[in-house]
Amino acid sequence: MIQEKYRECIEACLECMNACNYCYVSSLKEYDLAMLRECIRLTRECAEICSFAAESLSRNTPFAQEICELCAKACDACARECGKHEHHHCKPCEQACRRCAEICRSATAVA
Amino acid sequence: MIQEKYRECIEACLECMNACNYCYVSSLKEYDLAMLRECIRLTRECAEICSFAAESLSRNTPFAQEICELCAKACDACARECGKHEHHHCKPCEQACRRCAEICRSATAVA
Amino acid sequence: MIQEKYRECIEACLECMNACNYCYVSSLKEYDLAMLRECIRLTRECAEICSFAAESLSRNTPFAQEICELCAKACDACARECGKHEHHHCKPCEQACRRCAEICRSATAVA
Amino acid sequence: MIQEKYRECIEACLECMNACNYCYVSSLKEYDLAMLRECIRLTRECAEICSFAAESLSRNTPFAQEICELCAKACDACARECGKHEHHHCKPCEQACRRCAEICRSATAVA
Repeated sequence: MIQEKYRECIEACLECMNACNYCYVSSLKEYDLAMLRECIRLTRECAEICSFAAESLSRNTPFAQEICELCAKACDACARECGKHEHHHCKPCEQACRRCAEICRSATAVA
Repeated sequence: MIQEKYRECIEACLECMNACNYCYVSSLKEYDLAMLRECIRLTRECAEICSFAAESLSRNTPFAQEICELCAKACDACARECGKHEHHHCKPCEQACRRCAEICRSATAVA
Repeated sequence: MIQEKYRECIEACLECMNACNYCYVSSLKEYDLAMLRECIRLTRECAEICSFAAESLSRNTPFAQEICELCAKACDACARECGKHEHHHCKPCEQACRRCAEICRSATAVA
Repeated sequence: MIQEKYRECIEACLECMNACNYCYVSSLKEYDLAMLRECIRLTRECAEICSFAAESLSRNTPFAQEICELCAKACDACARECGKHEHHHCKPCEQACRRCAEICRSATAVA
């Protein structure tokens, strides 16, 4: 019921999407909004790309390599940004992004 | 790390997306392709809508009610179509769709 | 090369998506960020829904009615929020949203 | 009201999305469905990616380069497949894909 070869990657993308969106929604409620501009932008961007990647992989896209690379780059950027902040929602987002980037890279790596 | 109130619904949508996309990819490889036209169309359609619903709920969309209703209708239609076929990928897709429709409806039901 | 019956509606959705995303990107750069929280959230939300609607209509979705209603509601909410602000990017966004809501409603209205 | 630097690219992506979806819907109605398996799969895939690219560019994504490259590859593959068929909907789809691939490549080319 799932593209077996991409199962781990799909799950990592969906966890990352959830963490990014949670961070996005939480950031928009913070008092110190101005310092979170990039965080707001990148969490939404990364959530979109993770969601797109998961859906694409689940339909066994012929462009898995390119989509996983794109997703890994978005996760890198989002992890870097969230790593600058001490908010309770930024740390788990950073971790989910780092894990997703790693799994995306290994999912399509040539042996 | 996830919108708690929608957790069950998000997970049902993502399972349904996977089942629909698996059925879609498998249908496109079948010998008796002509009888699967509607199945191909509706599984892709339902997968798109489930993916959109999951992403929207995970960012706590203000339009949860409307999106869940849309998703439930797409799941109903896809379940009905897959229920007509005996292919090994149609049965689990039908089940995932029925379950997702039910959870989407209860997720936003007024008490 | 386009679903003729939905041509006007697809075009209105895409114009609205562009106006919402422009307003979103511009809002994130404003000095008075705190008063734009809802604007940031709703413009992104509306852009997503408009994009989803346009893509769905262009593949002649069987759920046009529900999707157009959803899109009209998102446009209403975004127009209402942008109407509260004097920023140069909020006025055209409000107008695009009002126009898109109207066209979405007439696109699927029963005669 | 639109990200000016990407205007041509966004418009090419949206035209290509429409041409791909029109070809997809039309292919699913053809008598000789079996020979159109790849066409059905690639037109849907390409439409998804074009739609995602247009939405991403309209929010001035930091990943424009990667997304345009992905879109160009999907357009190449879809154009190649549609170029094999004589159906009335395949020719305009092939042309829209070739044009979109070219514009995506030039949109992000380093001088």
